[in-house]
Amino acid sequence: MRPGGRTAGQIRPITITRNFTCHAEGSVLIEVGNTKVLCNATVEEGVPRFMKGEGKGWVTAEYSMLPRATHTRSQREAARGKQGGRTMEIQRLIARALRAAVDLKMLGENTITVDCDVIQADGGTRTASITGACVAIADALAWMRKKGIINNNPMKCMIGAISVGVYKGEPVADLEYIEDSDAETDMNVVMTDTGKLIEVQGTAEGEPFSFEEMSQMLELAKQGLVEVFDAQKKALA
Amino acid sequence: MRPGGRTAGQIRPITITRNFTCHAEGSVLIEVGNTKVLCNATVEEGVPRFMKGEGKGWVTAEYSMLPRATHTRSQREAARGKQGGRTMEIQRLIARALRAAVDLKMLGENTITVDCDVIQADGGTRTASITGACVAIADALAWMRKKGIINNNPMKCMIGAISVGVYKGEPVADLEYIEDSDAETDMNVVMTDTGKLIEVQGTAEGEPFSFEEMSQMLELAKQGLVEVFDAQKKALA
Amino acid sequence: MRPGGRTAGQIRPITITRNFTCHAEGSVLIEVGNTKVLCNATVEEGVPRFMKGEGKGWVTAEYSMLPRATHTRSQREAARGKQGGRTMEIQRLIARALRAAVDLKMLGENTITVDCDVIQADGGTRTASITGACVAIADALAWMRKKGIINNNPMKCMIGAISVGVYKGEPVADLEYIEDSDAETDMNVVMTDTGKLIEVQGTAEGEPFSFEEMSQMLELAKQGLVEVFDAQKKALA
Amino acid sequence: MRPGGRTAGQIRPITITRNFTCHAEGSVLIEVGNTKVLCNATVEEGVPRFMKGEGKGWVTAEYSMLPRATHTRSQREAARGKQGGRTMEIQRLIARALRAAVDLKMLGENTITVDCDVIQADGGTRTASITGACVAIADALAWMRKKGIINNNPMKCMIGAISVGVYKGEPVADLEYIEDSDAETDMNVVMTDTGKLIEVQGTAEGEPFSFEEMSQMLELAKQGLVEVFDAQKKALA
Amino acid sequence: MRPGGRTAGQIRPITITRNFTCHAEGSVLIEVGNTKVLCNATVEEGVPRFMKGEGKGWVTAEYSMLPRATHTRSQREAARGKQGGRTMEIQRLIARALRAAVDLKMLGENTITVDCDVIQADGGTRTASITGACVAIADALAWMRKKGIINNNPMKCMIGAISVGVYKGEPVADLEYIEDSDAETDMNVVMTDTGKLIEVQGTAEGEPFSFEEMSQMLELAKQGLVEVFDAQKKALA
Amino acid sequence: MRPGGRTAGQIRPITITRNFTCHAEGSVLIEVGNTKVLCNATVEEGVPRFMKGEGKGWVTAEYSMLPRATHTRSQREAARGKQGGRTMEIQRLIARALRAAVDLKMLGENTITVDCDVIQADGGTRTASITGACVAIADALAWMRKKGIINNNPMKCMIGAISVGVYKGEPVADLEYIEDSDAETDMNVVMTDTGKLIEVQGTAEGEPFSFEEMSQMLELAKQGLVEVFDAQKKALA
Repeated sequence: MRPGGRTAGQIRPITITRNFTCHAEGSVLIEVGNTKVLCNATVEEGVPRFMKGEGKGWVTAEYSMLPRATHTRSQREAARGKQGGRTMEIQRLIARALRAAVDLKMLGENTITVDCDVIQADGGTRTASITGACVAIADALAWMRKKGIINNNPMKCMIGAISVGVYKGEPVADLEYIEDSDAETDMNVVMTDTGKLIEVQGTAEGEPFSFEEMSQMLELAKQGLVEVFDAQKKALA
Repeated sequence: MRPGGRTAGQIRPITITRNFTCHAEGSVLIEVGNTKVLCNATVEEGVPRFMKGEGKGWVTAEYSMLPRATHTRSQREAARGKQGGRTMEIQRLIARALRAAVDLKMLGENTITVDCDVIQADGGTRTASITGACVAIADALAWMRKKGIINNNPMKCMIGAISVGVYKGEPVADLEYIEDSDAETDMNVVMTDTGKLIEVQGTAEGEPFSFEEMSQMLELAKQGLVEVFDAQKKALA
Repeated sequence: MRPGGRTAGQIRPITITRNFTCHAEGSVLIEVGNTKVLCNATVEEGVPRFMKGEGKGWVTAEYSMLPRATHTRSQREAARGKQGGRTMEIQRLIARALRAAVDLKMLGENTITVDCDVIQADGGTRTASITGACVAIADALAWMRKKGIINNNPMKCMIGAISVGVYKGEPVADLEYIEDSDAETDMNVVMTDTGKLIEVQGTAEGEPFSFEEMSQMLELAKQGLVEVFDAQKKALA
Repeated sequence: MRPGGRTAGQIRPITITRNFTCHAEGSVLIEVGNTKVLCNATVEEGVPRFMKGEGKGWVTAEYSMLPRATHTRSQREAARGKQGGRTMEIQRLIARALRAAVDLKMLGENTITVDCDVIQADGGTRTASITGACVAIADALAWMRKKGIINNNPMKCMIGAISVGVYKGEPVADLEYIEDSDAETDMNVVMTDTGKLIEVQGTAEGEPFSFEEMSQMLELAKQGLVEVFDAQKKALA
Repeated sequence: MRPGGRTAGQIRPITITRNFTCHAEGSVLIEVGNTKVLCNATVEEGVPRFMKGEGKGWVTAEYSMLPRATHTRSQREAARGKQGGRTMEIQRLIARALRAAVDLKMLGENTITVDCDVIQADGGTRTASITGACVAIADALAWMRKKGIINNNPMKCMIGAISVGVYKGEPVADLEYIEDSDAETDMNVVMTDTGKLIEVQGTAEGEPFSFEEMSQMLELAKQGLVEVFDAQKKALA
Repeated sequence: MRPGGRTAGQIRPITITRNFTCHAEGSVLIEVGNTKVLCNATVEEGVPRFMKGEGKGWVTAEYSMLPRATHTRSQREAARGKQGGRTMEIQRLIARALRAAVDLKMLGENTITVDCDVIQADGGTRTASITGACVAIADALAWMRKKGIINNNPMKCMIGAISVGVYKGEPVADLEYIEDSDAETDMNVVMTDTGKLIEVQGTAEGEPFSFEEMSQMLELAKQGLVEVFDAQKKALA
């Protein structure tokens, strides 16, 4: 039995609120159970220096936890003077995933930056960020079309993400914090709504995992993502 | 006529939501018009090194704007590797103000840190932070009493803050962004609910201001703060 | 009785020495009692990036205490790798105040930077910095006219600053360190020599202060600043 | 045909030189084709603060590329003043992987730090680092036994790592730089010599990958790792 | 002919003012021609961590140029967030030199830090710093004896420093800025008043120098230092 | 008797391996006894901003110790977030020395950066770096001629470096670590193969040294450098 009473493959309810704040070109609050992430997409003219003149756009992301998003307060990274390794790792993952959803050539020399700020954490903040950020990008691209900055839709597909893992010897989907902190294996899966993989990151936190468990986790991820894509579609309808 | 159609002394509606997030000992979302600040109070055992052994507690604060709380995206301070001067100045102001509300001896050797994170900005983020943080501290102190960490209430008084200024030659209260960015003078006033001053910071952004205008602004602040204290009381009722 | 035997409104002797060092376009040592600040104004062509092409100049300031300007040695900020919050707050105050004294359009696209380095501290270093820096800017502007960089005088007025406070229940002017560290309220007032206010920063360090005390402190500041402007005029004569 | 003329599953020759430098408790130079990484294991008494008193040891790793390990010079991270996101991500991966190989309780309150410095890069530096670091740890543990610091062998298993990917539509093993920079998918697999998985990180750099390709890559990794474990065994014989 | 009309071996007038500021245990302003350096010695209980428990003291130094000590303004190191290589190199030299003058065992577990802040620069700031700092240390040690912290005098000898160089093909002593910036060779010599060498740093800025020139420069340094030691003795008399 | 059984003037065997890595334009591993430094020269178009448009090139160097090049592990400077004073001092020395060997005008507006990374340290790493870097530059210049970037050879002379010192009262050449850490005086001498001096840095670590010892050390350096230049010539033959 899982702590929250869910079955192995059952994921938590997902709520996606668009236009959560008023300034960003795309602003989405995603709630996955008690995990809440604000995903703000900003459109800016121009691209980073290393890409200038290639006629392509850029999509990037930044991730941060508010200091008290968690059970105990973590030091503010701005006060420490640097972003931690975990933050770096996560925002690189989010950015890579989002770039897979967008046709950078169709974007023109424009940059979309998605800020994923975790308001409240209960496991799965990086996957919630990706799922929410994809909706924020959809809104930002709609804004660009409305403003006449682009004429077509550079969105190649929707992408969603979910965490799966091995908890007390059993593969489970969408781990909440209490499970995550105690899981033998933790795996994040990013997929397109066309059923292809963007990123798979599986880590043995305790015991190594078998190829068999790897397959089971992938299968659970695939099933869970059906609901993730549904939640995105409902929000964008 | 002010941009939002308000009279000179009219302040924007204030909404204070307690328990906005679930982990902090005090968690308040304060909305003042379109300005929204999340104020999370954290209680931790111990005090900073320079105070150890004095038998007194400490109250401090950190302030940050989410990168897209504003019309255009500002660079994330954690990514830049340092907090800007404006952030430093504001969080020092908030912390000083809050310390005036708490009897540090009654707090014992414990620290309360209030994180004020601006979700959406439309002028007056530092004064909204102070008003909201004071409620978050009240909740954190109640939590401490409930846990038996303290027996009495170290809260000496409630404190509230408001911005006033001179806009198009006329003293006005509670400037929104469009007024603030164009005001001749900007003044932040922090007061106790017993009618005494904690902090007055008046700055001529354009033209210098007269002693007469100074008095008028203080008077407007005093009046506006009546509603601020009302909003706090209603929230804590 | 005040520690130094002064009356409530009596300020310390002020000495302003021009051309204290030989390289800066304006170089002023200001002594207010035992407080000694070296204010060096540098003229440079060009303006910060965010102002380019607007045809206006810029005035800014930096503030620092030598490590042993105080009773005990404070760590060198360059060695710590960042400027502290107090330094940031003070240099922002100085810079804002100085900009109020200069017509930036008449300055052309040039920048004046005033470095205020505290050689010896005994209270009131930020107000002494403002008073001294204003004289250094006057000299720098004279240098610019002599070099033909500008033809008119962009100085709109002289500005001076003074600290006032409530010490042992009584409003006093120009607090020295021993008073300042023990005062209930500390207030810095920046004024033009035409009697208008540039900045008012009052802080309750201990007890909150009344609106009555606020008025008394402003009045003391006004009186004390008469001597400050006299000292400036004498120095520039 | 692959650029180097290898078949899809063929990996590059691996050379592991022990005692490459004389000071470290374990010092290994691993060469995988043209990729050369120096892995130095250091044994130190004590553990990081957050682990003190738990009676367990710690294993960690740091990773760096010499500035000219690559085709063009990259800026030295020490000169830039911070480690980049890629470095952080990689050294976190290496450290997690190594911890899976060691029984931390048997290690006692001691720390092993493995420094993986890339002398020359031609793809697969992070997987080569893991494979080489595991041998360096084996030597460091032998040193600890010889010194009487520990009595048993905390090594639970050997671990090895390999990169696989999809290059020009075909799954291949052990990508060299020219393939890696052009691959559709890049996946790093860390495995125990008992056939279990420690970490799987697959990333679509260009096109998303199918579940079918995922399986094929895992299979190639498994095969390639046979030779990796052989090379380790030979080196340790 | 040298720019200032001096002969090859002639050094500039030296003025040493003790008790220049009031807080430091030793406070010396040294003027060598137009070069002015404030040397403040601070006595603190305790030693750096790596020396604890050895029963010995420590002497260290920090060096900084005020931003406008030079012809053009240099960026403040505290604002840049790090000390430059030149600063580091110089303060290491000063500290090493000063340690050679003090018997660290007789100092007990106390630390003397000398802050050398260049008020005005005209060549030879590092050598002036050493000469002035030695006097400041003498005063700080006297203060320690007076306070009963030590009973004897840990000063083993006085040390002084001078720059020499090859300017327009001719060895000269005590280069001022205009010579220094154009010299073929620049050499700093630190000596004890007992005629022994502490540090010799000769650098070919333009042309390499011969062993013959090396000897000539050392000879000039020895002669010039006679006057340096005289100035110290006069100041301390 | 010296610890390694060498005579006072006897230097350790020198091995210089060219093309040690494959990407750099010049790549040299220099071994002096147990000291091993990898010197990689990189050629890049352009010069630092402060030199643009002068038609001259630039030569610079960076120095670093791998964390475990020494008996105990030193913290990685990239992880600490800054380069230490020792590193700064050494890389400035190396860069200055190398610039003395190259005619910057003949180099055109190109930059050569030499990265000196110490793989294993046993005394004399900075002098080994200079000796090895000079060979790496020779190779880099040959590469430039081959590529047609330059037509002539900007190498004015070869430069080599050696450490000498006073150990147990006797002047000795080429100190290994065990001597260096215990020497009274340590001196680094950089010379051209035409017998002129580039840099002399002598430091009394313990007792001050006499002018007589200074001469003896210089003489030993001169003799030892004969072998250094031989090793360079042999390597480049």
